[in-house]
Amino acid sequence: MSDPWRAEQLDAADRIAGLRERFSLPADVIYLDGNSLGPLPAHVAERVDRTIREEWGRHLIAAWTSDGWWSAPTRVGDRIGRLIGAAPGQTVVGDSTSVQLFNALVAAARLRPGRGIVVIDSIHFPTDRYMAASVARLLDLRVIAVPAAALDATLHRYAEDIAVVAFGAVDYRTGELHDIATITRAVHHVGAVAVWDLCHAVGAVPLDVDTADVDLAVGCTYKYLCGGPGAPAFIYVAQRHQAAFDHPLIGWNGHMDPFAMETEYRPSDGIARARIGTPHILSLSALDAALDVFDDVDIGTVREKSLGLADYFLDELDEIVSSGALDLVTPREHSRRGNQLTFRYDDADAIEMALRRKGIICDVRPPNLVRFAFNGLFLSYADIHRAADSVRGISHSTRE
Amino acid sequence: MSDPWRAEQLDAADRIAGLRERFSLPADVIYLDGNSLGPLPAHVAERVDRTIREEWGRHLIAAWTSDGWWSAPTRVGDRIGRLIGAAPGQTVVGDSTSVQLFNALVAAARLRPGRGIVVIDSIHFPTDRYMAASVARLLDLRVIAVPAAALDATLHRYAEDIAVVAFGAVDYRTGELHDIATITRAVHHVGAVAVWDLCHAVGAVPLDVDTADVDLAVGCTYKYLCGGPGAPAFIYVAQRHQAAFDHPLIGWNGHMDPFAMETEYRPSDGIARARIGTPHILSLSALDAALDVFDDVDIGTVREKSLGLADYFLDELDEIVSSGALDLVTPREHSRRGNQLTFRYDDADAIEMALRRKGIICDVRPPNLVRFAFNGLFLSYADIHRAADSVRGISHSTRE
Repeated sequence: MSDPWRAEQLDAADRIAGLRERFSLPADVIYLDGNSLGPLPAHVAERVDRTIREEWGRHLIAAWTSDGWWSAPTRVGDRIGRLIGAAPGQTVVGDSTSVQLFNALVAAARLRPGRGIVVIDSIHFPTDRYMAASVARLLDLRVIAVPAAALDATLHRYAEDIAVVAFGAVDYRTGELHDIATITRAVHHVGAVAVWDLCHAVGAVPLDVDTADVDLAVGCTYKYLCGGPGAPAFIYVAQRHQAAFDHPLIGWNGHMDPFAMETEYRPSDGIARARIGTPHILSLSALDAALDVFDDVDIGTVREKSLGLADYFLDELDEIVSSGALDLVTPREHSRRGNQLTFRYDDADAIEMALRRKGIICDVRPPNLVRFAFNGLFLSYADIHRAADSVRGISHSTRE
Repeated sequence: MSDPWRAEQLDAADRIAGLRERFSLPADVIYLDGNSLGPLPAHVAERVDRTIREEWGRHLIAAWTSDGWWSAPTRVGDRIGRLIGAAPGQTVVGDSTSVQLFNALVAAARLRPGRGIVVIDSIHFPTDRYMAASVARLLDLRVIAVPAAALDATLHRYAEDIAVVAFGAVDYRTGELHDIATITRAVHHVGAVAVWDLCHAVGAVPLDVDTADVDLAVGCTYKYLCGGPGAPAFIYVAQRHQAAFDHPLIGWNGHMDPFAMETEYRPSDGIARARIGTPHILSLSALDAALDVFDDVDIGTVREKSLGLADYFLDELDEIVSSGALDLVTPREHSRRGNQLTFRYDDADAIEMALRRKGIICDVRPPNLVRFAFNGLFLSYADIHRAADSVRGISHSTRE
């Protein structure tokens, strides 16, 4: 048996335990799937209701200016910028990660004309791979997919033939965290452009894209940022690339003078040129409200607690992990993992379902990976104690 | 002076006057700008609140199945399909019109390999032109922009060199309605693919894309469909083209087996392959609710009233229109106009502002076009009477 007092002591010492009150979570649920869909911040419903009833309902078309709808993509973009270490004016919100990736990959390749190779993470999220393939077809490039461990060798081998290197900061399956600064430096060493997918990192781990000299980045906002189901994605374009940012999805919102309705596209100055079509204001309003959660929060502090929760989970499961019954896929070193732990388990679906019946929500990535996400914003050590207890019980019973 | 009794008589005879109650409109406003942003259907706020508090807040990740989030793009797509004359399984909702246009234009061009020309409406909405230019650059095509009146000559001249013809059903500036069936037939006569932009037509005029043999169409849902600011767009892909629909924005949502997370893209069967990234559920929920307004409504009946409102407006302004003080740009024939009347007026901004001070909302498209949209769903003849009275007063005072 594990020591229930330890969770109590850890919770008592937790300086950010109060943040949980910012979320509206069902009392009977321990939510370890915030890396799929973050939970609902408590004040979001009220804010969206105001956007609907007051702004849309009463102000109608005037709300585009009177309620700041028009400027929301760049304003909210800057709020996310703060969380990824981007100075203002480099981040804009809109559309889906898939769409932003397409735009970023084409624009990145166009920054390096004459180079024919796009290198991607071989265990990249599917949409990243599909979009890379689509872009390669359109621009007559070749995609080479390699694991992070083989990236250096690939950079060395293809060197100046490489136009773009596109990697995910945190692997969605294994939870492995890549070293953005080191990889970006290596990419720049061969003169290529680094495009980062921050989906599983933003809001979870401290990021510093400006300092790391990242060229382009995209990310989603419905995981650790808790922006709501299908909340708009974001794109970061480093200031130094903005004037040359030559993207394919040139929509009227990114025009220098959108309401002049000119027949030729003249890209806006700055990050606004990465705007595409009319922003999804209701979804954007929810995201904007959700970001209030982070206003006075230091991601480093949350990250520290998230690692603490994950470590406590591992401690509690030490016996069955050491025995190999649950095979830990995620690296143990803090510097090499995000806020998720992934285990290989033969009957992954069965354990997920059994946990769900006990109100503990995790998820499965095929064929046999069980993922648990630890978010210090709303989880307690007591939650993790209960979750680990349940995992132990289920793991024992399925082995009997 | 105009006859105030006539408006009263017309309203008394209006069989769909009761539909106004389905909307939440400020009492002091006459809203003639529903072709920019449709007004708020009264029940939308409650529905979105439920999506947020109950589905997202309580069901969390499970809502993707338990609350039908995953299937919403095709389910809501079919609801829109009914309004454009598309049999089920050909319409899907998501992203912005700009993004859908890009996808449609590339896919259309790929249906006609070896042909080098894209013909577009020379007074097309800006984003349509920008996206056509972007697609032409990527696929090494040439864009020829012509007014509708010159389309036949262009088709005759370039014939089999034309891959795609992309037109808007209703011109956003002049309000001119094009004959979709006739133009599509002419496009097919030279073997090209017809892509229609239905933004200013859907929900406003009866459409029958299946019967008209339309190939691809896109449209927005925040104008006459009242889906909310930046509500997701839609794309229609005729059944006969779906197996060959080869689009560039291949996102994981359009994969045959999305949760298998395969490394290679295998497009889904049917219209689902046109899905891109994760749908913006909150915006989609509002749109889904808004479409309830249309469930028992015949677009033909609403269209008839909308034309009646516009004709009454013209009658009331007959003197100043005949005198040329207000120059009507929109064709007078019912078969040649949408639900909007556009006037050329030297000081367009001044008249728009003066009307706004009286609670009458219209808009201006540069440099000098004033637009009034007539939507039989929520406007009365009394509204139009008051609006026309105000226009007369302002027009007289600005000429004195």
